Amino acid sequence: MKEIAQGESVLIRDVTLDGRQTNIRIEGKTIVSIGPEPGGETDVVIDGKGGIALPGLYNTHTHSAMSLLRGYADDMPLQQWLGEKIWPLEAHLTAADVYQGTRLACLEMIRTGTVGFNDMYFFMEETARAADEMGMKAQVAYGFIDLFDEEKRENEIRATEKLVRHIRGMNNDRIRAAVGPHAIYTVSPEGLRWCAEFSRQNDIGIHIHLAETEQEVKDCIEQNGMRPAALLDDCGCITPRTVAAHCCWLDADDCTLLGDRGAFASHNPSSNMKLGVHRAMPCEWLRNAGAGICLGTDGCASNNNLDMFEEMKFAALLQKFYWNSQTLLPAAETLSMATAGGAAAMGFDGGRIEVGAPADIVLLDRAAVCNTPLHNPVSNAVYSCNGGAVTTVLCNGRVLMQDRFIPGEEEILREAADAAASLVGRATEQS
Amino acid sequence: MKEIAQGESVLIRDVTLDGRQTNIRIEGKTIVSIGPEPGGETDVVIDGKGGIALPGLYNTHTHSAMSLLRGYADDMPLQQWLGEKIWPLEAHLTAADVYQGTRLACLEMIRTGTVGFNDMYFFMEETARAADEMGMKAQVAYGFIDLFDEEKRENEIRATEKLVRHIRGMNNDRIRAAVGPHAIYTVSPEGLRWCAEFSRQNDIGIHIHLAETEQEVKDCIEQNGMRPAALLDDCGCITPRTVAAHCCWLDADDCTLLGDRGAFASHNPSSNMKLGVHRAMPCEWLRNAGAGICLGTDGCASNNNLDMFEEMKFAALLQKFYWNSQTLLPAAETLSMATAGGAAAMGFDGGRIEVGAPADIVLLDRAAVCNTPLHNPVSNAVYSCNGGAVTTVLCNGRVLMQDRFIPGEEEILREAADAAASLVGRATEQS
Repeated sequence: MKEIAQGESVLIRDVTLDGRQTNIRIEGKTIVSIGPEPGGETDVVIDGKGGIALPGLYNTHTHSAMSLLRGYADDMPLQQWLGEKIWPLEAHLTAADVYQGTRLACLEMIRTGTVGFNDMYFFMEETARAADEMGMKAQVAYGFIDLFDEEKRENEIRATEKLVRHIRGMNNDRIRAAVGPHAIYTVSPEGLRWCAEFSRQNDIGIHIHLAETEQEVKDCIEQNGMRPAALLDDCGCITPRTVAAHCCWLDADDCTLLGDRGAFASHNPSSNMKLGVHRAMPCEWLRNAGAGICLGTDGCASNNNLDMFEEMKFAALLQKFYWNSQTLLPAAETLSMATAGGAAAMGFDGGRIEVGAPADIVLLDRAAVCNTPLHNPVSNAVYSCNGGAVTTVLCNGRVLMQDRFIPGEEEILREAADAAASLVGRATEQS
Repeated sequence: MKEIAQGESVLIRDVTLDGRQTNIRIEGKTIVSIGPEPGGETDVVIDGKGGIALPGLYNTHTHSAMSLLRGYADDMPLQQWLGEKIWPLEAHLTAADVYQGTRLACLEMIRTGTVGFNDMYFFMEETARAADEMGMKAQVAYGFIDLFDEEKRENEIRATEKLVRHIRGMNNDRIRAAVGPHAIYTVSPEGLRWCAEFSRQNDIGIHIHLAETEQEVKDCIEQNGMRPAALLDDCGCITPRTVAAHCCWLDADDCTLLGDRGAFASHNPSSNMKLGVHRAMPCEWLRNAGAGICLGTDGCASNNNLDMFEEMKFAALLQKFYWNSQTLLPAAETLSMATAGGAAAMGFDGGRIEVGAPADIVLLDRAAVCNTPLHNPVSNAVYSCNGGAVTTVLCNGRVLMQDRFIPGEEEILREAADAAASLVGRATEQS
């Protein structure tokens, strides 16, 4: 099988960075020099002449194995979609499916310039294995759902502890564990408190859905006399290690709370639009309150892809449309959300091309139509290009894609397609 | 220079159409058979094994030469953006620029599966020439703007008559003329009436902006005591030959009016979102009223690309988000808007793969990640893929792109980039 040449030292020659042609030199996992002189010999030389360098992107909210469900069901009322289509299929998911689905997702993310992702789902050991093999960075959380039942809670606690032990045992600086309390309507306050305490003791992230729908907010106020963010905070779940996904229905006080706690809000515009949530995350309020803002695609059942370039455009456009201003979330800020903002949210060093930073680098095709003309590379990256303009991807100094070639792609596609067909077959057989 | 083999007869072999493998046979401009038997020899054989066939897409609202302005200015308040950036640059546009910009736009549209476009701008003879050379279908209109001034009106009338004579002289069934009264706030009622009458006499289309912003509606009511659609109708501009772009702020009565007249509404979701118009075209009301609905990208200054696959996703998602329903504008209806709906709006036969139909055919890459798994090709086309999944495009039986190769691409990109740089240079010099 064809492979990509790897080495301890890599030179990206004559690449365009911040509008100037330069050379980026990498030793091990780290960028060691950037400048007009390429310097001495390296193990690997990448011709960057046709490329524009950007930091690798971070997808801060996804369920990557749901790539197997891409296009399986759409355009249905939410409860019917979940109850008749998504949950019955998920009930048949195996560990092997999650491995195949995550490999497919990693393939798609690498192809579209993403180097790291934040995942909450089941069989997360398999997600970690796939991410590791594909060379990506990942923060993985077991989706903790106790449905307010004590016995279930004990199971979820054991599953979470087991995953965190497993990830620690991998001893891999690209793969981190997090706790994944699903949401306030699926996890009891006791479960949330356990997650918060476990996260604190182990210094690991918290990945949760927050204020996705208006119904969630209404129900929470009715049942608890407070809004979802306040309830989560009451349980200790709003921390600097927290990534709260969606956040569509946060009010100004909620934003202040997230800002005060130094938490991160992951904007998922495509998913929010497809599922008709009718309100866009208040990015401006959150930023002004001091909260971190980042970007995510959500899973493939509700997007239906993992292209963070497309997601940047959805984010920048949805903010302007919903919040009624042509100047909200400009291109540079959107790119920053998708890179530095995402890395910070997941606790990874990354999201910048600088000496001393991890070599997480994406090259965009300068000769692509979407980059012609090239008045403004950042505008083109956000508004004009999609992930198809990505030619080359490095993560921690390792070349994951070169000139659009990813080793093993055909096998990954074939095995994922087979797994998806078999999954639907098993689910249909039983119904 | 490398070329694509062309011929009087073309066979697309073993292609996937509506979920089945089949063969599509083309004689001249027309599909003559579809079926399991490939039939006898043809001049050209295209291996369709890795492809999914869809009808070619129609972009029903654009200003294609604005491709030269891609990324030139974004994220600014509308009036400042127009007054300080877009208009000063447009003041320096030459006929040669429009030719180069349109060639670039055609390249991008072909690459992303579009076979026909509806254009309103200046130097439209050049737009027609570029579209003709690139092998596309186009309806071209001179942007008629009299600013309520009689002398200007006479100029615009002469310019419109001249363009229509020119297009008639081309005697090309792929290139049609239309009248292009810009909008109710830039064209006097007398100008609108002349356009309507001229369109009727010559049996050509009307291409106009309608109810794009709330301000337009408010101002119209204040100044004329009626809403923009009613004013246009009063001037005879709402006809079965009319494509009204944007239509964001139509109310239910406006929709009924467009339906009663058999007019077409072109949804331009990316542009509407980027420019923060804060309301989405009421597709459902329009369809229920009997109006035609179709899709367009608008120009590259306000999108910033011409990818109709991306635009389909924006449309299907924005409808759900804004109108608060997960079931609005499902995938199949979206694809129909972008194909059959668009062809009908522009008065072309097209938008379907059937015996007797023009051979406007797009092949999507079956092996692309966005088509894996392939539970539902239509869902994947709308929600998962972008134009990068298009491998091969035929328009009227001529192969415009094959296996992602378009003849002359490098030259088109280089010349357009040069034209854009020179345009900015001239505008900057003078300022």
